[in-house]
Amino acid sequence: MSANLLRRGLYKTVTASSAYSSSAEGTVDPLVQRLLHGLYAGRRASLAESITLVETSHPKKKFLARQLLTNILQNAQISEYLRGYRALSFRIGLSGPPGAGKSTFIEAFGKFLTGKGMKVAVLTVDPSSVRTGGSLLGDKTRMPELSRDMSAYIRPSPSRGHLGGVTRSTNEAIVLCEAAGYDIVIVETIGVGQSEFSVVDMVDLFTLVIPPGGGDELQGLKKGIMEMSDLVIVNKSDGDMISAAQRIQYEYISAFKYIPQKTKVWKPPVKRISSVTGDGIPELWDVMKDYQLKMQESGELIKRRRLQRCAWLWTYLKENLITTFVEFPDIKKNLKKVEKEVMNGILSPGDAADMLLQQYLEKIKPS
Amino acid sequence: MSANLLRRGLYKTVTASSAYSSSAEGTVDPLVQRLLHGLYAGRRASLAESITLVETSHPKKKFLARQLLTNILQNAQISEYLRGYRALSFRIGLSGPPGAGKSTFIEAFGKFLTGKGMKVAVLTVDPSSVRTGGSLLGDKTRMPELSRDMSAYIRPSPSRGHLGGVTRSTNEAIVLCEAAGYDIVIVETIGVGQSEFSVVDMVDLFTLVIPPGGGDELQGLKKGIMEMSDLVIVNKSDGDMISAAQRIQYEYISAFKYIPQKTKVWKPPVKRISSVTGDGIPELWDVMKDYQLKMQESGELIKRRRLQRCAWLWTYLKENLITTFVEFPDIKKNLKKVEKEVMNGILSPGDAADMLLQQYLEKIKPS
Repeated sequence: MSANLLRRGLYKTVTASSAYSSSAEGTVDPLVQRLLHGLYAGRRASLAESITLVETSHPKKKFLARQLLTNILQNAQISEYLRGYRALSFRIGLSGPPGAGKSTFIEAFGKFLTGKGMKVAVLTVDPSSVRTGGSLLGDKTRMPELSRDMSAYIRPSPSRGHLGGVTRSTNEAIVLCEAAGYDIVIVETIGVGQSEFSVVDMVDLFTLVIPPGGGDELQGLKKGIMEMSDLVIVNKSDGDMISAAQRIQYEYISAFKYIPQKTKVWKPPVKRISSVTGDGIPELWDVMKDYQLKMQESGELIKRRRLQRCAWLWTYLKENLITTFVEFPDIKKNLKKVEKEVMNGILSPGDAADMLLQQYLEKIKPS
Repeated sequence: MSANLLRRGLYKTVTASSAYSSSAEGTVDPLVQRLLHGLYAGRRASLAESITLVETSHPKKKFLARQLLTNILQNAQISEYLRGYRALSFRIGLSGPPGAGKSTFIEAFGKFLTGKGMKVAVLTVDPSSVRTGGSLLGDKTRMPELSRDMSAYIRPSPSRGHLGGVTRSTNEAIVLCEAAGYDIVIVETIGVGQSEFSVVDMVDLFTLVIPPGGGDELQGLKKGIMEMSDLVIVNKSDGDMISAAQRIQYEYISAFKYIPQKTKVWKPPVKRISSVTGDGIPELWDVMKDYQLKMQESGELIKRRRLQRCAWLWTYLKENLITTFVEFPDIKKNLKKVEKEVMNGILSPGDAADMLLQQYLEKIKPS
């Protein structure tokens, strides 16, 4: 992309911002200005406030959140351009079954990175809390040392009641962490389910953390996740567990032979580490850096991020289409009644959907 | 519901059918008439053809599929009313990790039921095949005996490329199997992920099948699924495995103490069976019948089915909203360009979504 095209791009962004609200006309709200200032100064309080802002569902605040994000994405684009299209941060996704020791790993790995002078942000995606309401463990309890580390920022994801919501704010939170100068953004998924599939669309490197032990069942269960993984970490490779860890390492190495590679430039390695002794963590970091370099140089990283931005667009589109529909006055008025008729078996679900949709499309007028 | 209300309901259904296409005006297409006739005669070929019809994405065929379903749902409503609101079939959902022996269980359980003079349909939901393309094993290979049984009908779910599609046609396939006189409809999920969450919204009884063995990890992994389960089956309880099966049975029984009950009238039991020897299968069936009776008499079954119809409506609404949007001429024309700008970082995903949505809402005119 030439500088000229970039300038054109920025111009377009401004046009787009004014398109969604003609009243704004490019003026930046004082709150947004304050947050931008705080973020670029690397203030944790501003980062926390910004993430809370993008998680809001309040219409006025949503507008401000959009303004904040548009500015940040715009500036990120310039920074990346000036850095020769090198990404501002390294986004690492972490997944794995409960008992794999993900928290202990993040604690050890995070401390290792901050010890090297890096700033580390940890975001948590926890869709399992949708049903039970609230995380199983507070993040501060899970990572006591890292949460006291001034170079680290730990933020649990809110459970907004449905996956879409959780997914949505995580994408934004990553961008905000980058703006606040965090070099490494770790996105951790808790629980099984769809969350891994969302997180893989947000990160540069998707990692599966597994414990030693765990039988064939576990391996079978993880087939879908292995296909998505760029790296497998066998955790708890210490003391009595070393030989079990080696065994599972070999199992995963041979399992990968039968799994199609995500990219030509990288064959997912399986590494053993100990979060307790720290063994293997420096080597693991070397592997990650090697991955980043290869993906960067081959253009694969840029390609992946491009597709991720597209997936992000679709998350928005789907959410907004449904929200706009539900909040449309005629639909809002009818919905409960139609739902009741469907529940009573008076209307078939398909007919009801067609009817509501037709009502909606007929009633919408140019605003 | 009184007979009067039912009549009113039927009248409304007809109104709704004519609402979605004024050309139809209540006349039933000859193909639909033929399929209805075949289904009510219990013809397998008609059932297969009907399921293929509801899986279509062709607009003209979609219209016929809708007509078929509206008629079937309408008649089901009358039949259920005449039977004193007893459901036409018993819908059983099956989930469990690979290696639990789900196929072998369905084979043994299905043969047991057909031996009792019942007609059994087996539907498979397999979202894992979305990525790899195609099921791991053909269903005929997985259940050789049952697939030759004339009282059984086995149908794999198509992988339409996204979960919504798979989910959608499964709901319809259940209703079609019921129309064709199948007393038991088994809906099996393959692979982990979101599929369990969809299937629980379609069945009367949600069952988790587990193998003996399987450590603590497995149990932790299944927490979300246990919350959804009405019954747990420990399979392979035979020969050397009996004591391991007993151990895991006790583990699950105690684990259920900490899980909130789905309904007041039922505490999920954990039963051991052997699909090879057939041990425990008659007792398992008694437990299932007991569940059905308790749920029926307490009104919980009707309540659950009511909510499921509502979930089904929402599946349709979401799908249709997105399809209508994507296929709208102005959007269709612009989408690729906007997607490209988002990928290039010229437009932020949020701004792009707002822009497209505004274009859409402004351009839609009464049709």
